This record gives sequence, C-alpha cells and structure tokens, in this order.
Amino acid sequence: MPYRHTLPIQIRFSDVDRFGHVNNNAYFAYYDLGKQEYMRSVLGPDVFDGDIVPVVVNINVDFLAPVHYGDAVSVETSIVRLGNKSFTLDQRAVRTDTGQELCRCRTVMVCVRRDDGQSVPIPAPHRTKISAFEGMECG
Amino acid sequence: MPYRHTLPIQIRFSDVDRFGHVNNNAYFAYYDLGKQEYMRSVLGPDVFDGDIVPVVVNINVDFLAPVHYGDAVSVETSIVRLGNKSFTLDQRAVRTDTGQELCRCRTVMVCVRRDDGQSVPIPAPHRTKISAFEGMECG
Amino acid sequence: MPYRHTLPIQIRFSDVDRFGHVNNNAYFAYYDLGKQEYMRSVLGPDVFDGDIVPVVVNINVDFLAPVHYGDAVSVETSIVRLGNKSFTLDQRAVRTDTGQELCRCRTVMVCVRRDDGQSVPIPAPHRTKISAFEGMECG
Amino acid sequence: MPYRHTLPIQIRFSDVDRFGHVNNNAYFAYYDLGKQEYMRSVLGPDVFDGDIVPVVVNINVDFLAPVHYGDAVSVETSIVRLGNKSFTLDQRAVRTDTGQELCRCRTVMVCVRRDDGQSVPIPAPHRTKISAFEGMECG
Repeated sequence: MPYRHTLPIQIRFSDVDRFGHVNNNAYFAYYDLGKQEYMRSVLGPDVFDGDIVPVVVNINVDFLAPVHYGDAVSVETSIVRLGNKSFTLDQRAVRTDTGQELCRCRTVMVCVRRDDGQSVPIPAPHRTKISAFEGMECG
Repeated sequence: MPYRHTLPIQIRFSDVDRFGHVNNNAYFAYYDLGKQEYMRSVLGPDVFDGDIVPVVVNINVDFLAPVHYGDAVSVETSIVRLGNKSFTLDQRAVRTDTGQELCRCRTVMVCVRRDDGQSVPIPAPHRTKISAFEGMECG
Repeated sequence: MPYRHTLPIQIRFSDVDRFGHVNNNAYFAYYDLGKQEYMRSVLGPDVFDGDIVPVVVNINVDFLAPVHYGDAVSVETSIVRLGNKSFTLDQRAVRTDTGQELCRCRTVMVCVRRDDGQSVPIPAPHRTKISAFEGMECG
Repeated sequence: MPYRHTLPIQIRFSDVDRFGHVNNNAYFAYYDLGKQEYMRSVLGPDVFDGDIVPVVVNINVDFLAPVHYGDAVSVETSIVRLGNKSFTLDQRAVRTDTGQELCRCRTVMVCVRRDDGQSVPIPAPHRTKISAFEGMECG
C-alpha cells in the first residue's frame, strides 16, 4: 500500500538507549511528528485548535528491526479507514536510504467535543479532505 | 484479574502537554518502569545483562481517560501468557487514590540471543519464576 | 550548607544513554521535579496558577560524576538568594545511599506577570514563606 | 560574533509544556543536536567512539524569549575557546525566520580517557581542525 505522506525524522541523542539502539519509546514521538504534520497539511494548521479535536484511543505497534544512532529514518503516514466517529492511521518507520521497514503502527483516533469530551461524527470537511488526499471513496 | 505488581509513578513536568494532560507518549515510559521493576524483582536484577534477553515486539495500548499533572498514578503489571519463545504482559495505569483505570497496555516480548538476534525458548528458570509469581500452571 | 528539601528521583530507562550513564539532559528533569515540589510545598500548590509566576532565566550546572541506571538518586533544593524581582535556587543531585555529590545546579528565577510578561517584585507572601522555610533574614 | 555552524531543529509535540511554550528542558536536546552535528562534521564521525572523548562539565544557559509550537527554530554553534584540556562552545537558539535570539548556552567540555576517566590534553588533530574551522589562532 502506498503511503502518501513522508516525513524525515531528526533523531536525538537522548533517543538512544544503553544498547546503542533507538529506544522503543522514541518511535512514538516519531509517529506523533508524522501524525501532526499529516493532520496539519491535509486538514489545516488549526486542526487541533477547534471545538472538535481528534484524540488517540488505541495504538498498536510492531517493532521489526533495531535502529542505530546515525541511521536516517523517515515516517510514512496514511489514513486507511474513515468510520463515523473514528478513523485509523497506518504509519511505518523506514530507513530513508534502503526503505527497510523498521516499525509499524496503527492508531485509532476519535473526534471529540473539547468542552464535554463526548465523541461526535467526523466533521464533513475533514472527511472530504481525507478522502480526497487518500483517493478513498467518501463513505 | 488481579495484578500482582504495583509501582507508583513519579510524574514529570515534561510529561504534561499543552492541554494540561499527561501526554500519551509518557505512558510508555511509565509502563517501562513497571516492566523493568517487575522483571528485576521476579527474574533477578541481571535479567537484561545476560546472553538471552527479552525484547519487545508488539505494544497495544488503549487510552481510557486523561491524567492531569498532580494526579497520583500507579502502574500495575502481570504476565498473563507464557508461550514457547514469547510471553505477554498485561499492564494498566490507574489513579492511585480512586483506582480509576486510565490506560491499558498489552506487550508481547520475545526472548532473543543477544549475539545473533535469533529468538530462542524462554529459559526454564525464567519460566519457573514467572509461573510461581503469577500462580500459573508451568506449561 | 544544609539543603532543607530532599526528593528521591525515579530514574527512567529512557534517561540512560548509550554509555550506560544517566544522560546529562535527564538531570534537568530531576531538578525540575525538585523545584516543583519545593515550590508547591513551601509556596502552596497553586504557585504556578496565579497572575504572577516565577520563570527560569538562567541555569548553571556542574556535572561532577556519572550516574548509572539502578543507582538511587535524590535531589536537594534550597533557595539561597532573595532579590527584589528574582531569586536563586541551589540544587544538587546526590547518591541517596552514599551522599556522593553528582551534579550541582544554580537556577535564577524571575517573577513575571503572566498577561504581559513583565518582571515584578516577588510577592510579599512568597518572600515571607521562603524566608521562614530557609531561616533567612527577610530582606 | 558569527556562528559558523547552523542546524534547523525538528520540534516535537512532547517538547511543548502546558503553557504552550517549548519546555526549557527541550533546549538542552536542541543544543545536543547542534553539538553532535558540529563535532561530527568538524572532528569526524567517530569523535565519540575513540579512547579519548569530550565530556560536558558545565552548562550555563540564559533563557531570553519563549518559543511556541510551530515556530521554526535553529541552533547555532561555535567553539570560542581552546584550552589545554578543555574547550568552550557558544550556542544559541534563534527563530529561523526572524533571527530573534531565544536562548544562549555556554558549554565547557573536557577531554577524558574513556578507560580511567582522567582528563587529558585535547588531541592535536582535534585542535588543528577546530582552529581551522573557527579561524582561530592555533594555541
């Protein structure tokens, strides 16, 4: 499956653990960078400032291969499912030079009203923009 | 299901995001603390220093309720499955005062030989200690 | 000089770098913990929520000895100078068991009005509480 | 004073605190990135892998202005003093678009033998490369 959004990651010294590998937890910061960039570029820079915001409810990550300090890493992001109130991102971390897959991540986000925390349908403009960007049927 | 290992967490100012909530990513550091403490106390302090070490291959997390800076949080940890080469931890973050469940995490770890990265059966002493601690049948 | 406030630190796996030492940067999170705890216990839990808040303008740190994962570390905190608008904290990280000094930190904080960012005199109640806690002359 | 090394920083969501500002502690990660890049490009990619390595003994930071999530930030780095066993880096964080100075940092590093931790003179090749890069007199 093609990912339509790619972001090169700036790895920090503090991401590396005592085995010389990028710490598993650092990946979550990388996926966050990819997610934020995707959302801001596809849904608009104010996507996290409105009355209805997407929040993460589930993250499921497979760790496939270790990364070393100095390796160039990119995060690829796609939205692969648009439900009524929720949607699913598929992300992966790859070596920028070889394309080797290092880590895969599925994230389920739900749209909630900020004032009372209740889940609400994905706003129609979001739905349209995501469908257009991903080349999906607009459900 | 009762969790047999509990660890109070020291929340850091840098764990809190611009919405005043503990950042989702900070939970992974909390689960790590619980996991390390569990492993060292049940399997011995040198569990990560030998030729065969457990490594994380999958993490699956449900975010249930937000945490605020100043809340007291504990992580509870149990090993709920012992396979041949892999095992599964069930962890959750709860409010220390009320017991409210904030976040759940399932982690699959595989035993690997450090020198060549190959997966190997869980060492028998590990298996015995975990079974005894968890009150499991020793498969 | 005696420090009147001590806080044991929960060291995280992600604080440790590829040399097996606690990363220099992790100390700043430890000092933050000590500072926050000191401020909340001496000046009140709402010290950072009012119209006038203390902000950091300078940090000066000496790194004296490495810390290893598994070492027990505490942060000691004292306010050693009360100026008109600014004050100075002296902190150090020590091994909890031996008292060995690992790191020293001086932090200058200034009281500012949150709405316009202007520096203002230290509020009199703060001054009184700090002087009392530290056994200082109330300037 | 001109800085001869500039690195754009990729700001992470987890760098931002509950006031919407980049957390003071995040700057230390930014300075680390600048320092590592400088050292690797001027002294060679293996500068931290030899028998003699530079270690940080003092950091002195002035926080001048807040940074917000979404601002583009760069770190500028220069070595401004070459002693016998120690040297001093001058770094600053600036807004990439306006050049506004946000934060200044002086770091003193000492060359130490890795096996016994003793300080030793700066290796002559390092001294030569730094002097050439910075256009200094080679002391």
